[in-house]
Amino acid sequence: MTGKVVILGAGAVGMTVATYLKRHTKHEVTVFSSDNNTAYSQCGLPFVLEGVVHDFSDLVIRPPDTFVDMGIDLHLGTTVNHIDTGCQKVISDAGVFEYDYLVIATGSMPFVPPLKGRELDGVFTLHTLSDGIAIDRSMKDSSSVVIIGAGGIGAEVAGSLALRGIAVTLVEAIPQVLPLTLDPDMALLVQQHLTSLGVNVRTGVQVDSINGLNHVQSVSVGKELVPADVVIVATGLRPLSGIARDAGFDIGPAGGIVTNEHLRVSLAGEFQDNVYAGGECAEVIDFITDSPFISRLGSAARRMARVIGENITEQDAVYPPTLSPNVVVVGNLVAGSVGITSQRAKDSDMSIVYGISEGLTRAGYYPGGSQLNVKLIFAGLQLVGAQVVAGEGVKERIDALSLAIRMGATVHDLLEWETSYSPPVSMVIDPVTFAAADAKTKMEKMA
Amino acid sequence: MTGKVVILGAGAVGMTVATYLKRHTKHEVTVFSSDNNTAYSQCGLPFVLEGVVHDFSDLVIRPPDTFVDMGIDLHLGTTVNHIDTGCQKVISDAGVFEYDYLVIATGSMPFVPPLKGRELDGVFTLHTLSDGIAIDRSMKDSSSVVIIGAGGIGAEVAGSLALRGIAVTLVEAIPQVLPLTLDPDMALLVQQHLTSLGVNVRTGVQVDSINGLNHVQSVSVGKELVPADVVIVATGLRPLSGIARDAGFDIGPAGGIVTNEHLRVSLAGEFQDNVYAGGECAEVIDFITDSPFISRLGSAARRMARVIGENITEQDAVYPPTLSPNVVVVGNLVAGSVGITSQRAKDSDMSIVYGISEGLTRAGYYPGGSQLNVKLIFAGLQLVGAQVVAGEGVKERIDALSLAIRMGATVHDLLEWETSYSPPVSMVIDPVTFAAADAKTKMEKMA
Repeated sequence: MTGKVVILGAGAVGMTVATYLKRHTKHEVTVFSSDNNTAYSQCGLPFVLEGVVHDFSDLVIRPPDTFVDMGIDLHLGTTVNHIDTGCQKVISDAGVFEYDYLVIATGSMPFVPPLKGRELDGVFTLHTLSDGIAIDRSMKDSSSVVIIGAGGIGAEVAGSLALRGIAVTLVEAIPQVLPLTLDPDMALLVQQHLTSLGVNVRTGVQVDSINGLNHVQSVSVGKELVPADVVIVATGLRPLSGIARDAGFDIGPAGGIVTNEHLRVSLAGEFQDNVYAGGECAEVIDFITDSPFISRLGSAARRMARVIGENITEQDAVYPPTLSPNVVVVGNLVAGSVGITSQRAKDSDMSIVYGISEGLTRAGYYPGGSQLNVKLIFAGLQLVGAQVVAGEGVKERIDALSLAIRMGATVHDLLEWETSYSPPVSMVIDPVTFAAADAKTKMEKMA
Repeated sequence: MTGKVVILGAGAVGMTVATYLKRHTKHEVTVFSSDNNTAYSQCGLPFVLEGVVHDFSDLVIRPPDTFVDMGIDLHLGTTVNHIDTGCQKVISDAGVFEYDYLVIATGSMPFVPPLKGRELDGVFTLHTLSDGIAIDRSMKDSSSVVIIGAGGIGAEVAGSLALRGIAVTLVEAIPQVLPLTLDPDMALLVQQHLTSLGVNVRTGVQVDSINGLNHVQSVSVGKELVPADVVIVATGLRPLSGIARDAGFDIGPAGGIVTNEHLRVSLAGEFQDNVYAGGECAEVIDFITDSPFISRLGSAARRMARVIGENITEQDAVYPPTLSPNVVVVGNLVAGSVGITSQRAKDSDMSIVYGISEGLTRAGYYPGGSQLNVKLIFAGLQLVGAQVVAGEGVKERIDALSLAIRMGATVHDLLEWETSYSPPVSMVIDPVTFAAADAKTKMEKMA
């Protein structure tokens, strides 16, 4: 199997596809990235800032040389200016490259709202390794940090900096933290934990401006002036789909490149056999709502890369509708979510019933455990969403509930679900069971 | 709803049924136990011996008084001599009691093989709170302990005592530890961990005798004489079903009381509407093999109690075939299992394919994680068994796989299963996925 494969983007999707092809085919593989690094663990950045991971270099999975040694033609720090779909060519700063297959994996970039003062020194986003290094450096002389946006990145960094002993204010325009992944009641647990770590959490309030002469000095939050020598703007990401749009590829409602179940890309409504997109620049289908959305997870990126690699090697692989279960580590608390939240159910005109429970991660008499809160969301009898907040055991429970949703579990299945028990690692009956029982009681009252 | 309910046994099943009835009905509830305690956490005994749980009293869920205050007629330290099914009466040391409903929840007792010297001072079983207290007391002057039997209790106690700094020899006749729940390759990980803690693990070798004059001095293990001043015999449990057998109730192949899906008991082949059995004296149906077995889990006991309580209150509850997922904590390692092992598949003439993987519980660069080993067992495409060994995240993965088996998950479902990721709590792709991929590769090679 031979051919020329050009990959735009050297992140998780790009490098996984490149590696897969080099292992399984004789394709010529060329990778472009405007960044100077190949794939690294973006998700690990907050924990280097915390100091628990010692060095940013720990996040680099493989040095670029190892990819070159595999025979990948790697162009870092190189801008691609245009895709010529007619001639199957990519025009870059490094020259013109023909392709038989094209993979668009350009990722995303932070969205920074048009705030007054956003150009001041000391104002950062946290998206790349270079961002992390710059923030870490400026943090050394910092006495107070303001983080704008309490999504996953904002909340994780707030927790990490608080554990490092830095004065942090976390500002969120929506009246809760983690608004995209948690219901308000579950988010409150995370907010209370941040407060207990000393973070000044301000939700439901707008940032009006960032103030200073050359360097930031304060942030105007509602009517208050919060002193700040470092500001981190974490108000979301936007897909880097411009180059695809300019080439005529279709862009969907979430701003990402439209893909089909094979992750092929459409040109003026027609899916192309030899052009793929994956990762944060591409739209995929939500398992619950059937609508297109952008999955931002490293795990999803790896799965998409695998599907693209298999399709280029003619294996007819499918990327199924996705649940994108997610988990964030905020200080000493872990918060996870899968499927839809109550708000998203409302937005989709879906009628829901929920069940909640509060338990422990270990037997009450066994030291070291934590509180464990579970919320399960049902549409009819069917599980459609789940949220878990605790000090431990969150990721695995979210994974279990991810499988439950995918396999069509009902409240009855969850009640019959047998869970295991040993005092150092659990309660006799898992709190998930009690949340299901709570939902069933509510369903019976409604019937 | 009124009537006289007599419950034999004050353990997890007995006290949960009693409490349920007192909360939901006006039944007169009488409970008998030859023990002097009501339900306590038997599973916690190894961890008091370890010293991580400080006192045996921590294991007592509620003092007996609280049950008396609820209006339960509680007869502790009282032997029941006979059940008269014709007259619906129980004859006990405390007198004769009539019943409208009878619940047999007499539990189990340790099986001690007929070893020479088993009656010596310093030889114990670990089944009751009193056993635990006696072992703890004798441990204070002990320099070396021999544990006979490396099932769940033997392995947990070996790990606990080793962490306490005591010299332990663990002897098992079968050539592996945890033979009922783990395959040899997974058991080896536990055995290596025990060895690393300083435990002298001797598998595949018989104990010939326990030696000493009044007090134990040594144990003959194969040709070796192992010094011992404390011996703990942990060679399994037997259902306490004698009183049921004597009353004419049917006993099954595993030595437990035969029950139907409502946990009703049969008298000469006819199921009785008003007599129930649950817990370690009763047989239930294995989800995979459809054959009767005895579930020894606290979690199963609680579920059975609930079904019995609901049936006595005429709710037509069913106890479905059971998987009994189990987890043990051996030193700093957790080992879990659900469904069938390779050996049990062989015994059932079931043809299987397995997949394995070795990963980590956290990102490689994040401190504090551990190795994570997964083994998945398939019959055809269907998941029928799973084993996980790691320092953390085992119980929740076993629970997820318990749900997967119950919902009929195939290898394809496990490959589509989306798992969540954050560096402090997981790898990008969960090792369970890699184990499923390994199984799929093996299936393809066989096809």
